[in-house]
Amino acid sequence: MKLQIAWIVGFVDGEGCFHVALNKHSAMKCGVQCLPEFTVTQHQRDLPVLHALKTAFACGVVRKSQGEVYCYRVRSHAHFMERIIPFFEKHKLKSKKSVDFLKFRRVIHLMSRGGHLTPAGIDEIRAISNTMKTKGACKAMKDGETIDYLR
Amino acid sequence: MKLQIAWIVGFVDGEGCFHVALNKHSAMKCGVQCLPEFTVTQHQRDLPVLHALKTAFACGVVRKSQGEVYCYRVRSHAHFMERIIPFFEKHKLKSKKSVDFLKFRRVIHLMSRGGHLTPAGIDEIRAISNTMKTKGACKAMKDGETIDYLR
Repeated sequence: MKLQIAWIVGFVDGEGCFHVALNKHSAMKCGVQCLPEFTVTQHQRDLPVLHALKTAFACGVVRKSQGEVYCYRVRSHAHFMERIIPFFEKHKLKSKKSVDFLKFRRVIHLMSRGGHLTPAGIDEIRAISNTMKTKGACKAMKDGETIDYLR
Repeated sequence: MKLQIAWIVGFVDGEGCFHVALNKHSAMKCGVQCLPEFTVTQHQRDLPVLHALKTAFACGVVRKSQGEVYCYRVRSHAHFMERIIPFFEKHKLKSKKSVDFLKFRRVIHLMSRGGHLTPAGIDEIRAISNTMKTKGACKAMKDGETIDYLR
């Protein structure tokens, strides 16, 4: 399945989610782990669409979310910087999800400067995160859940 | 807001709904009213997107659904025949919503031949409708609710 760029933008305007979770994590310096995620969630009947998105963005994974629901997700800082952010900077979202994208990008740039490793930075990220719209599908991760930064 | 064709297809793949309701209606010959609808539902913050869809399809209305939820919807048989069906025949949906579109088209063509006015036709439409995926946003209409076929 080959996806046109404008189709991807439209589909993400509808189904995409830019989300920043801040979870308690005793192993982290500030006791908090900052977990930005870009996800697109679908029923399993549309797994081919999720795999086509993975191919189009050339990063991320397709995983079972729960029950018959699957998601395409990106969690790697490098992939946000090199693929996801440049894509949506070039091809603008039409819906108010564009506002969430800009907030998400701000968090990613803060993290590039190590902002998530200081209490003041975590406060700033939390303030941004609290104003973002999130879909139910963007489930919060549990304390200590392993994040694979290579994906 | 100007929408690209591929963006519209992607957005409808995510957020669109092809739905056929069969409601009891004592004034109808068979006691059942057949109500096909194409809808795209959004939070009110994305009303401009719904109005842009209305402009792009050159038919339909934008209406409050409930609370802060609005929808773009088409109910006119003529507009299905002249605009919605030709659009999605030319610009194919990528997701399994394409299957719902084909079933929806079958119902519209049945209605063109008066199928919804005979018990056998209603049974056939019901059989098709029962296999269509519907989103919660496509709310069933109540018995006797007025349908404006001019929209």
